[in-house]
Amino acid sequence: MSKINLADKLSQFEGHWQPRVVGAFNDHDLMVVKFQGQFSWHSHTDNDDFFLVLKGEMIMRLRDGDVKVGAGEIFVVPKGVEHAPFAEEETHVLLIEPKGTPNTGDPATAAPRREI
Amino acid sequence: MSKINLADKLSQFEGHWQPRVVGAFNDHDLMVVKFQGQFSWHSHTDNDDFFLVLKGEMIMRLRDGDVKVGAGEIFVVPKGVEHAPFAEEETHVLLIEPKGTPNTGDPATAAPRREI
Repeated sequence: MSKINLADKLSQFEGHWQPRVVGAFNDHDLMVVKFQGQFSWHSHTDNDDFFLVLKGEMIMRLRDGDVKVGAGEIFVVPKGVEHAPFAEEETHVLLIEPKGTPNTGDPATAAPRREI
Repeated sequence: MSKINLADKLSQFEGHWQPRVVGAFNDHDLMVVKFQGQFSWHSHTDNDDFFLVLKGEMIMRLRDGDVKVGAGEIFVVPKGVEHAPFAEEETHVLLIEPKGTPNTGDPATAAPRREI
């Protein structure tokens, strides 16, 4: 039981679209991730997806349009909704998902859940 | 389905220790709250408690000592652990708890869950 400094965790790794697990609560993983470029279209059948932009700007592409999400803003993608996050510049995000959720929506292509 | 601007939500109310529900995901409420002064000692039997300091500094008092939690830092209080948050100056916090969790640990004394 200790505090989690998000900027400190983000300073400890490079690489985009590779979430790092920094903590847990109520059977969810707390993760930090660096976005840049276009991630694949996907959805999660059983869970909502929580994004909080910490730095930069994320464009959440949805089938009915794009939503710009800046620092200090949360976007929740409801379960079953197709989405494809994009960032022009490197963007830092706090991501919360149930433990074991594949980040691509498909275990076969998901990034491993690495702790930091 | 829309983005949630936390600073904007926090600008819409006054009052300390009165969480406002700003969204939901996976049967949890996303809440913003303003802390100042000392909150009561309590614990939650069935759930962990998520705190992310957005502005200011929270002291999380625990039975075995205090933890200072500043802006950009998360503190998770595991279920069953007694805690009593404190803030010298007004501090803004993102709080995530399962829907219906009483903020005092006791439904009889809990603040109502108001949406904003």
